[in-house]
Amino acid sequence: MPVDVDFEAMVTAKRADQISRIPAEWLLPEAITSRVSPATSEISAFGLFQETTLLTAREREITESYDATSLLEKLASGQLSSLEVTIAFCKRAAIAHQLTNCLTEIFFQKAIMRAKECDRYLSEKGTTMGPFHGLPISVKDVFMVEGEVATMGFVSYLEKPPATHNSVIIQMLLDAGAVLFCKTNVPQTLFVCDSENNVFGTTMNPHRLSLTSGGSSSGEGALIGFRGSVMGVGTDIGGSVRAPSLCCGTFGFKPTVDRLPWAGQQEHLRAGWPGVLPTSGPLATSARDLSLFTKTIISRQPWLQDATCLAIPWREVPRILNPKLTIGVWLEDNELPVTPPVLRCLRAAADKLRGEGHTITFLKCPSLVELIEVAKLGYRFDTSGTMQSHLRDESPIEPVINMEAALDNGPISLDSVWEFGAGRDTFRQRWGQIWRDNNLDVLICPGSRQVAPLHGQYGVPIYTAIWNFLDFPAAVIPFGKVDKSLDAKQMRDGSVPLHYDVNVVDGMPCSVQVVGWRYMDEETLSATEIIAECLSRHEKPLNGHVLVDSGRKGSGSAKL
Amino acid sequence: MPVDVDFEAMVTAKRADQISRIPAEWLLPEAITSRVSPATSEISAFGLFQETTLLTAREREITESYDATSLLEKLASGQLSSLEVTIAFCKRAAIAHQLTNCLTEIFFQKAIMRAKECDRYLSEKGTTMGPFHGLPISVKDVFMVEGEVATMGFVSYLEKPPATHNSVIIQMLLDAGAVLFCKTNVPQTLFVCDSENNVFGTTMNPHRLSLTSGGSSSGEGALIGFRGSVMGVGTDIGGSVRAPSLCCGTFGFKPTVDRLPWAGQQEHLRAGWPGVLPTSGPLATSARDLSLFTKTIISRQPWLQDATCLAIPWREVPRILNPKLTIGVWLEDNELPVTPPVLRCLRAAADKLRGEGHTITFLKCPSLVELIEVAKLGYRFDTSGTMQSHLRDESPIEPVINMEAALDNGPISLDSVWEFGAGRDTFRQRWGQIWRDNNLDVLICPGSRQVAPLHGQYGVPIYTAIWNFLDFPAAVIPFGKVDKSLDAKQMRDGSVPLHYDVNVVDGMPCSVQVVGWRYMDEETLSATEIIAECLSRHEKPLNGHVLVDSGRKGSGSAKL
Repeated sequence: MPVDVDFEAMVTAKRADQISRIPAEWLLPEAITSRVSPATSEISAFGLFQETTLLTAREREITESYDATSLLEKLASGQLSSLEVTIAFCKRAAIAHQLTNCLTEIFFQKAIMRAKECDRYLSEKGTTMGPFHGLPISVKDVFMVEGEVATMGFVSYLEKPPATHNSVIIQMLLDAGAVLFCKTNVPQTLFVCDSENNVFGTTMNPHRLSLTSGGSSSGEGALIGFRGSVMGVGTDIGGSVRAPSLCCGTFGFKPTVDRLPWAGQQEHLRAGWPGVLPTSGPLATSARDLSLFTKTIISRQPWLQDATCLAIPWREVPRILNPKLTIGVWLEDNELPVTPPVLRCLRAAADKLRGEGHTITFLKCPSLVELIEVAKLGYRFDTSGTMQSHLRDESPIEPVINMEAALDNGPISLDSVWEFGAGRDTFRQRWGQIWRDNNLDVLICPGSRQVAPLHGQYGVPIYTAIWNFLDFPAAVIPFGKVDKSLDAKQMRDGSVPLHYDVNVVDGMPCSVQVVGWRYMDEETLSATEIIAECLSRHEKPLNGHVLVDSGRKGSGSAKL
Repeated sequence: MPVDVDFEAMVTAKRADQISRIPAEWLLPEAITSRVSPATSEISAFGLFQETTLLTAREREITESYDATSLLEKLASGQLSSLEVTIAFCKRAAIAHQLTNCLTEIFFQKAIMRAKECDRYLSEKGTTMGPFHGLPISVKDVFMVEGEVATMGFVSYLEKPPATHNSVIIQMLLDAGAVLFCKTNVPQTLFVCDSENNVFGTTMNPHRLSLTSGGSSSGEGALIGFRGSVMGVGTDIGGSVRAPSLCCGTFGFKPTVDRLPWAGQQEHLRAGWPGVLPTSGPLATSARDLSLFTKTIISRQPWLQDATCLAIPWREVPRILNPKLTIGVWLEDNELPVTPPVLRCLRAAADKLRGEGHTITFLKCPSLVELIEVAKLGYRFDTSGTMQSHLRDESPIEPVINMEAALDNGPISLDSVWEFGAGRDTFRQRWGQIWRDNNLDVLICPGSRQVAPLHGQYGVPIYTAIWNFLDFPAAVIPFGKVDKSLDAKQMRDGSVPLHYDVNVVDGMPCSVQVVGWRYMDEETLSATEIIAECLSRHEKPLNGHVLVDSGRKGSGSAKL
């Protein structure tokens, strides 16, 4: 917490202002909110939500029955107005926030005005504003939205003025017809996969408040996991889109770096980053929505607005050409074994895929421990203390301290940059050999050693960061859930011990990570759709969370 | 020259071995070779060639009347056999070497065997081996060709054994049906645009032996300029494909980094290079051949063989969609003015393009001097002395000493990598603004301040290196020639003075550099073809060099 008294007052004022942005009639009763706390085990946001009647049946239908693709069809045809869709999601986001603390900036009134503008446009012109016409989209706090601040949970950023421009990707969403309605929470520094900062506090997992929502796109995970948003934009440099996705049971996609625009965010990184590079990426409630988002942005030529963005046009990958995939399965690294439910669900996914005629090859992969030693370097090149300077008036949270300790493997210098580059080339060639030898379309692997852990316990996101290091596109598909009766096993410690208690995570969402080859984002997304459809067939909804059908992963039937 | 006596003997032996690879009946008489020397001003290789009758009329026709595209048509249809084409180019390459010292490894016998294999394949199977069926292609000495050494002009590399593998791009050429017949000379260290090393000596410009052929793909420039090869592969990290092209009147293309495969070359760079990155690229005798080469390699998915290569499929850019281009013209940087013939030909090109209906916009561009200060950093990150270690037994040549002095602008550290990255992003955004504001397809600009200078006088290749720094694809089109009656003007010195004497360069080829946006190699090549066709219409052949029609730049009429 902030040391300086003025800052304490500023944080208090900020939080008071934040809650004032929620219309009084959307506030939950004390009887519910008093039970919301990161320490409250067992309680889920869905359970608490059952106790309210804030949402009308129509609003529940709107927020629960569609993915973005099907909502957009209804919006474009006028079967749903942007106004009613926007109000429904604003309302549900308000509830999500009160139950999980997932939002930062709240601007529902602006969203409603914008929705009316969309409706008027459609009715007057008889055509949509663009492919995202009238759709409410949530965005991670790092993005600049004109008129809104972007504090990213840094106490020192409370002094910064509201944005006078939109980030490139934000402007593109607006140009495509989207309605922006809120910004979402992040962990301190954005360099951990936990979800706490000193300005906004901790974002909780909607499936169980005592568990983390993951990070650093923490708020997006919780919000979309709760269906307070149907599509959101995060960023990912080590797993920051995929960790909240796998923690909260949403879909998430980290594209190849610079295929989506990055420019115009709130400043927080030193300019000229030479190591592992970050990328923007979508979170959503279906695999086809990941494709929709990525395709829509890339098709609008983001490189014309952001010169760092790659001028690689979107390619249509015709599904008919490759109905059956060759899928590598990387179950785990021997030295970094995954927890029993993660392994069980991954095996089940492989079985199911093989059952539908896909070719499944179990892979032996290069040592992850060896790779991490090189990859770590790629996060350590900023010796100027940029991040520390943002923290000047507050203490680092424990996960940040732990991450720094985990990353610290010796002195860093110009030679380290060479070591990093040479090591990355070597590992890319090794993975290239695996791809070639097995004629892979994609591989599936764990997204993490564990499902959503207790707050502050995410640790180093090894199974996601490897794909940032190699710059391979990777998606997370929710699949299955922890089942005490099946997963109450001991696990090997490996070289980095991991505490596993099935009672803590029983019933939580499990997932599969789909990884494609560098720059083959189109093929990776297409395979992700095919795999998600296969995995969702005959799948039961996620136990205990009947409101949100995390079991429905395909792009097919959208109804619960 | 080598200090060590043993090395002197090794160099002598190497040169003797080299000349022994040329069949005795292809050796030129002493009366001609005695006049060949880098100091011999005024003499051109074409003039000396006129004094020989080594080539039959048929062989002259084969080597002078086609570009690669039209030769390949004749080869595929059987109108020309690979054997006769290969013998013609081997013979002419032997002559080129004796007149310009352009080759390193000579393996005509292997080429002839391979050509016979191609002919047999076509006759037996009724189909070609691939898109390069039977075509002799020359390659820069850095590439590994199985069974051949790759010394790159380092005395210390004379000890290295012959290659036991092919570089990825070499293997792909062979898989596409090409015939390899020789490797070509480079300057010491490959980090200068001159053409001398202590093993093979100096490569001379076929248009005037006293002038440089450019570098570091020095031998490719001289060989293709003389038509001893119709297509070759070079590499470019600051202008090494384009400098020899503009010096020798050939076409050359530097693609976006990693679109063409780089892997498997003779080791000479420290692994993990974090600065300005090198790329492979073709040299040819027509613009359409640059496209043919690039398209053929990329279409064969080089990323399956070389994991550093980008998995970005080749895109067809339909010509019909954009028959008229919007072309920016960047005449020169005020502080680094170009010599009178370079400026005159660039203006003439702009006039001609406007005359054919293209939109021409004269651009004001960001300071080149300011950019160079950042770009320089990107060539200086190897503080481990890799290059110096290759030079352990020999003295650096003067251009290498001068280049080191020119690049040295202060201490280098991890912070410099950040400075480089941040500066590059800034300049990319500035250039992005120019592209956007002017709705550019491509821009044209000088490829160098001057045409081919005296040996050792190329200096820092500023007008090419800028596009390596920004990683924009760039091609060189030969256009016009120095004309004493028009170009005998004084020139401004700018911030880096440049000695200009029209008498030294009168009649030498001039050129235009075509620059496209990053990753839009397809559009850049398409525009290069359109521009080359326009510039070649009604153009007279290059004065004084009737054997090689440097004035014919288009992909149209191939006959002289």
